[in-house]
Amino acid sequence: MNTHKISSNFISGLSFTAKIDQYHVEMDTTDENTQNLGPSPKKLMLASLAGCTGIDVVSILNKMKVNFSDLKIDIHASLTEEHPQIYNEVFIHYFIKVREEDQAKVQKAVDLSKDKYCGVSAMFQSFAKLNWKINFL
Amino acid sequence: MNTHKISSNFISGLSFTAKIDQYHVEMDTTDENTQNLGPSPKKLMLASLAGCTGIDVVSILNKMKVNFSDLKIDIHASLTEEHPQIYNEVFIHYFIKVREEDQAKVQKAVDLSKDKYCGVSAMFQSFAKLNWKINFL
Repeated sequence: MNTHKISSNFISGLSFTAKIDQYHVEMDTTDENTQNLGPSPKKLMLASLAGCTGIDVVSILNKMKVNFSDLKIDIHASLTEEHPQIYNEVFIHYFIKVREEDQAKVQKAVDLSKDKYCGVSAMFQSFAKLNWKINFL
Repeated sequence: MNTHKISSNFISGLSFTAKIDQYHVEMDTTDENTQNLGPSPKKLMLASLAGCTGIDVVSILNKMKVNFSDLKIDIHASLTEEHPQIYNEVFIHYFIKVREEDQAKVQKAVDLSKDKYCGVSAMFQSFAKLNWKINFL
């Protein structure tokens, strides 16, 4: 069975450093007690989502021999009013420059990530409505 | 309505850098194409979970005037066999040193994070079985 492990140590104030394989990621509160040591843990989940689908899309475009540039993924997410606050609607917005004849391949890559490959978006779909949009630059 | 926004730019290979407020977090694939620029996006979700509950627990212990040291949160998570692979069972393991008479307060803080405050664990509970354990050092 495949398992993932991470470890997170308290630093000071309300900040933590997570050890993920050989990498360290700092996290901190966003309230008035912040020491500005790192992003909020909750927002880090949105980075996970962008990274997961981004890696899928690039992998698939490479396999399709599609040249691209200026790839960026913006994520906007709304939170519930009640606590614990969770993301209930998420907008995943891809920006990419490709030749016009390759635009359909980008759509195909995004669809494959959404429907087949991206575990993070599959997890997000358990609690949030997800919306995907591509902007061709 | 409260919304969160992040932006993630493609770097090279299969790596991305996410901009979360004033912070940057690099992410990379873990397969043979990795450039070793950052953690896997999926594992980053486990860091989110550790950071979220960690910040809760420290905030609550501070309010309770409980002195503690050596706080660490380890997370182990198993993945589904089928694709897209999602976390289906997660073990959240707290390590902490407190006076023996404060151990019940730590349990209370963990329970409050679990049941009331931690949005990330609330989201995880939509797709995974979560298990909590405290080790008093």
